[in-house]
Amino acid sequence: MALTYREAYQVPFYESDVNQNMKLPQLLSLALQISGKHSLKLGVSDDVIFNKYNLVWIITEYDIEIDRLPKYAETIEIETEAIAYNKLFCYRDFRIFGQDGQQIMTIHSTFVLMDFDTRKVHTVVDDIVKVYECEKIKKIIRGPRYSQLDNPTETLYHVRFFDLDMNGHVNNSKYFEWLYEVMELDFLSQHVPHRIHLKYIKEIHYGTDIHSCVEMDGLTSKHEIRSEGGLHAQAIVDWKVK
Amino acid sequence: MALTYREAYQVPFYESDVNQNMKLPQLLSLALQISGKHSLKLGVSDDVIFNKYNLVWIITEYDIEIDRLPKYAETIEIETEAIAYNKLFCYRDFRIFGQDGQQIMTIHSTFVLMDFDTRKVHTVVDDIVKVYECEKIKKIIRGPRYSQLDNPTETLYHVRFFDLDMNGHVNNSKYFEWLYEVMELDFLSQHVPHRIHLKYIKEIHYGTDIHSCVEMDGLTSKHEIRSEGGLHAQAIVDWKVK
Repeated sequence: MALTYREAYQVPFYESDVNQNMKLPQLLSLALQISGKHSLKLGVSDDVIFNKYNLVWIITEYDIEIDRLPKYAETIEIETEAIAYNKLFCYRDFRIFGQDGQQIMTIHSTFVLMDFDTRKVHTVVDDIVKVYECEKIKKIIRGPRYSQLDNPTETLYHVRFFDLDMNGHVNNSKYFEWLYEVMELDFLSQHVPHRIHLKYIKEIHYGTDIHSCVEMDGLTSKHEIRSEGGLHAQAIVDWKVK
Repeated sequence: MALTYREAYQVPFYESDVNQNMKLPQLLSLALQISGKHSLKLGVSDDVIFNKYNLVWIITEYDIEIDRLPKYAETIEIETEAIAYNKLFCYRDFRIFGQDGQQIMTIHSTFVLMDFDTRKVHTVVDDIVKVYECEKIKKIIRGPRYSQLDNPTETLYHVRFFDLDMNGHVNNSKYFEWLYEVMELDFLSQHVPHRIHLKYIKEIHYGTDIHSCVEMDGLTSKHEIRSEGGLHAQAIVDWKVK
């Protein structure tokens, strides 16, 4: 088992939705912040790997298992562990524990290192990841097959100034707003996500017109985030009645 | 002087904009959270006043003085003080201190108590505010005169699921996204706000179509947030070259 890092967090009012659950985009941003602190503590902060290697971490995929979401005012614990890596991919888990100590969520994430100038994926640098004491594996962990949508409902979005992070790209967590937004409020008030697969394909820049496409299949929604430039992300969400 | 409450906060990556400044909507949400903790500590949390009086706090006005915004990764201190109240209005200040201890911002805010069922403003209840040890005054602190916009540029927005707070109304901080969004990225990359006056007039619900209207006058932008139902907010922002 690799090293873990853990922090407590109380869910504030302004990060809670109409169901009194923590908003998922905020939870994913928080998880990312905690992985950043983990790396900082081990001496391999974003600044260090950028200055030494000209590399930045990019998330390519999420697999999120949700027993229940954190509630408003609940004090949760978030534990993270860089579980394994291979030649190209690094796998990091986040485990969310409720106030009663029970595990309520697992976020499996896949990271790659990208060269900041060429924007191309770089092979994993052993010197960066060895500090996490995680296992090097041969296997590539694959997400689901995302089939093409045949006849989706489409909604148009514009990228907003505050959607951008410091690099001028749309923040990962914003994609979840576009996924959610195409669902009806009635549906979102009655259902919560149970399992989410999301794959990032291509970065989105300011000024881009985004088409958030969805097809329902029972309690499963299939999503594509598209622009004139092609496909940016695909997702599959399994919902359950809350 | 009334009682103060103070907390430290480190600005995370995902709350930083392309200028490496903390995003203003996030900063205002944080300030609100800290005023909530102040009230909780004094025994007059939102829960308590809702259960005992059927009242909720509503922000009606901001006056924000910005010497500079907090920077990415900076550890700031936020101090809040309920400075005074009269028959209808309560005035609370937030003072933001940079990592070097210098004060970099002041947020003046005006709150009212609203009856949760009738949605009407309620006179200030002495028993709620006496714990802050703030002064009762006769004077009403007035914001600027917001003149009507003659020939504004308009942009249409839809209210999103994650824009809503637990009460099903658009979160206060979201208005700032609509104000910013109508400005060009070029402008927002070269300028930072120096002084912001914002007045909330009417709540916004899910499904509403929002028109964010702006008129420029030199380095001053004048804003209206409108819907078919009328005027929801007015703002005046003074910008400076960053």
